[in-house]
Amino acid sequence: MRLNENSPIPLYYQLENIIREKIERGEYKSGDKIPSERQFSEEINLSRMTIRKAISNLVQEGILERRRGQGTFVSEKKLDTFPGLIGFNEHIEMKGMKPSSKVLEHKIFLATYEIAKRLGIEEGDRVILTARLRLADNEPIGYEKSYVPYHICPELLDIDLSKGSIYKTLSKAGYKPTIANQEVEAILSDEEMAELLGGSVDQPILRNTRVTYSSTTPVEFSLNFYRGDNYSIHTTLSI
Amino acid sequence: MRLNENSPIPLYYQLENIIREKIERGEYKSGDKIPSERQFSEEINLSRMTIRKAISNLVQEGILERRRGQGTFVSEKKLDTFPGLIGFNEHIEMKGMKPSSKVLEHKIFLATYEIAKRLGIEEGDRVILTARLRLADNEPIGYEKSYVPYHICPELLDIDLSKGSIYKTLSKAGYKPTIANQEVEAILSDEEMAELLGGSVDQPILRNTRVTYSSTTPVEFSLNFYRGDNYSIHTTLSI
Repeated sequence: MRLNENSPIPLYYQLENIIREKIERGEYKSGDKIPSERQFSEEINLSRMTIRKAISNLVQEGILERRRGQGTFVSEKKLDTFPGLIGFNEHIEMKGMKPSSKVLEHKIFLATYEIAKRLGIEEGDRVILTARLRLADNEPIGYEKSYVPYHICPELLDIDLSKGSIYKTLSKAGYKPTIANQEVEAILSDEEMAELLGGSVDQPILRNTRVTYSSTTPVEFSLNFYRGDNYSIHTTLSI
Repeated sequence: MRLNENSPIPLYYQLENIIREKIERGEYKSGDKIPSERQFSEEINLSRMTIRKAISNLVQEGILERRRGQGTFVSEKKLDTFPGLIGFNEHIEMKGMKPSSKVLEHKIFLATYEIAKRLGIEEGDRVILTARLRLADNEPIGYEKSYVPYHICPELLDIDLSKGSIYKTLSKAGYKPTIANQEVEAILSDEEMAELLGGSVDQPILRNTRVTYSSTTPVEFSLNFYRGDNYSIHTTLSI
């Protein structure tokens, strides 16, 4: 590891680039712990302040991540969503991975206040509840809970949703999903989520609350939970 | 608190509705701790399983939240973003709150590898770096770090960005922002973020990495950090 003290390039930025290169060359791999500030300062003749600045910048860019009481690690590559309305299977296949789903619940359910409000139906109206664990290459990445008004697509109840798609079934029934409103939040994993998705309690979780429409008809309300360490949500905004 | 054991409505859902009503009537307020499972089971004649199911459902809907070792609380109302490309000040004003900004850095900076790649410029090219703490009604809600290529808008350096807007300045320079690609992640707050945004270390943070374009020209790369407990990101997806 060599820095050039006579270069006009600031030393912290030279160090940033050295770390970046080590990651690109695979010398530091995803999930690896990088040297501590103290270890860096013993290896190269730099102040802890300068080292801290370089590491902070890489943490802010998301290239490194700090884990409390453990040190600083190379971030895992995250599976980012496609910025459009496509199904999970299609999306994972586009990434060159093998999608699979475990159906945890699939049944008639009576709409609660919240579900009814989001779907524009009455409380107590029948909906089809589907809860699925979503996996990519057999790794759990998300837990998705979906509510579809029963009357618009009763045949959804007969579909094997470990393989089939809610969006495709809705399309066949004449309700092709065309637009969705979603709200994305960062929360901490509780015991139930940690058990479902793996990972530990108090890990960051992306929660995505979505209402999907076919033209102006609400066709699905869903609550979706993804592991923060291996998933990100990609969207496009326009004026 | 009274449940009807002869009703066809499941007991856990009756309890959900009681808790919901208490929140709506203001008997339980945002941030309040609700009774524990044990306390509920002493007050009403229900099994802990049934109580747990009701609370779990409300946690999944985001109405309640569990804090490890502390109990279950009524979630704080979050400030959700507008699902379009508008500036921070406009957005906060739309919510009926008073926006303000503290400029922490505002200077010429030489593009790093990452910044250059995102903005389609050369590493070492000049950019204008602006780092701001964003507040709504004097509460810190976000930390935003923005990089704009110097050559497209040198006048940005002379704007007082505690009041002014980067998007408006770009528009005046002939580069009206028209579309943005953003990636949203859930991470944990480190010490630096906790100091900037308040709250404690290991709280959930929404990180939003955005490239903004004027037509097809990249005009800004930004790294944005928001407190998970008071902010959510609202987007629209279409086919």
